[in-house]
Amino acid sequence: MRTLKLTVAYDGTAYKGWQLQPNGVTVQKVVEDAIAEIMGPHRTLVAGRTDAGVHALGQVVTLRTGKSMESADLLRAMNAKLPGDVGVTSIVEVPNEFDPQRHAKSKLYRYRVHDHVVKPVHARNHVWHVWNVDWDKVAEAAKVLVGEHDFSSFRAQDCAARSAIRRITRLEVLKDPPAGPPEKWIEVEGSGFLKHMVRNLVGSLVEVGRGFHPVEWIREVLDAKDRRVAGRTAPACGLVLVRVDYL
Amino acid sequence: MRTLKLTVAYDGTAYKGWQLQPNGVTVQKVVEDAIAEIMGPHRTLVAGRTDAGVHALGQVVTLRTGKSMESADLLRAMNAKLPGDVGVTSIVEVPNEFDPQRHAKSKLYRYRVHDHVVKPVHARNHVWHVWNVDWDKVAEAAKVLVGEHDFSSFRAQDCAARSAIRRITRLEVLKDPPAGPPEKWIEVEGSGFLKHMVRNLVGSLVEVGRGFHPVEWIREVLDAKDRRVAGRTAPACGLVLVRVDYL
Repeated sequence: MRTLKLTVAYDGTAYKGWQLQPNGVTVQKVVEDAIAEIMGPHRTLVAGRTDAGVHALGQVVTLRTGKSMESADLLRAMNAKLPGDVGVTSIVEVPNEFDPQRHAKSKLYRYRVHDHVVKPVHARNHVWHVWNVDWDKVAEAAKVLVGEHDFSSFRAQDCAARSAIRRITRLEVLKDPPAGPPEKWIEVEGSGFLKHMVRNLVGSLVEVGRGFHPVEWIREVLDAKDRRVAGRTAPACGLVLVRVDYL
Repeated sequence: MRTLKLTVAYDGTAYKGWQLQPNGVTVQKVVEDAIAEIMGPHRTLVAGRTDAGVHALGQVVTLRTGKSMESADLLRAMNAKLPGDVGVTSIVEVPNEFDPQRHAKSKLYRYRVHDHVVKPVHARNHVWHVWNVDWDKVAEAAKVLVGEHDFSSFRAQDCAARSAIRRITRLEVLKDPPAGPPEKWIEVEGSGFLKHMVRNLVGSLVEVGRGFHPVEWIREVLDAKDRRVAGRTAPACGLVLVRVDYL
């Protein structure tokens, strides 16, 4: 048996998230279907289950196989079988003990905001369209969230994680990102995140930036440990899982 | 009567080009439908008819109207009515004699190439995916095409223009465009273009960059004034009409 680590990129617009569902097409389904066509049925493990409409540049997926197919051949065959909105970037062999979720040291999520009155017709499925945001206030409020905290106020109501304590190592506003004006990016890095946590953090931070709450409100929300006091969940389409690091 | 000049952006992926067609949805149709819902039927004129799948950031469209509606109100109402992949960026009043096509002094088209083996899952409808291109050779060959020439070798077979003489004022390779690696952009500016001319220029230039022909071949093609000697037409999805200038 060998364990293969696949880096997978996808445009999540057309999918009901990563994980297999009884109804609806998910990214896991098209990835496992492609593998099955090439070398028979295999079940995959994933670093981070993304919600419906969330994208990935560097999702990490593993599979165990008894087949001797070369990684380079599997990569080529998978990209030929997969639809245009899902691609495999690399395949490497890892120890059989490797768990893409438990062994992740850090995950980087990026949230893209289109901060302009003009409609984002080209990037509409990849940004949140909201304007009149004071990004200095967002950056100031974001500082409060960096570090180890109980993020109960920012977890989905049906989040199944036992503990709500997580560590954010970086939470930063990129005012001049590579996508250029009028985009702003909020990047957040940490070892793991609760269900909807990144979208909930972004939703509350943007409410501060739009002047609905003062900067200090973020600390009150964090301290309350109560989802009901935080802001709205930011739309899924602005979020992309950029990278998962293991070392 | 007043004449209004609309700047229109669209993602052309879902449309059969700009111009009204007996079958299939075009950008002109959704724009004129939105206007009709707001202030009754009006016919529009356009700066450049784009092909099926071609995009625009700054298409220019005019309409003559007897209605007294404020431009700002029309802009807001149109963006509310239009689907997410079509937007109006600005509306200004112009002299009634203004013709968006005949009075255009310069048009800027951009052609985006994804120059990497890895599939462009996010930008797949906005780039041409082709790799192993020598961009120095493309840039060198492009120099031959700048200026006033008979572009018969680069016009579509069913192009209806009387003369094939056009002037290209700029034809440039952007090796480090705002979209970042692995994209390369070919930008071309001129007062007007023949049918499929930009896509045909790009198709031949990229064949030079991939080593299928020497750099000097481009001059032979231009001099031949014969579509059959040129390269293939580059795919529509990589092309975007960036801007039309009138002064």
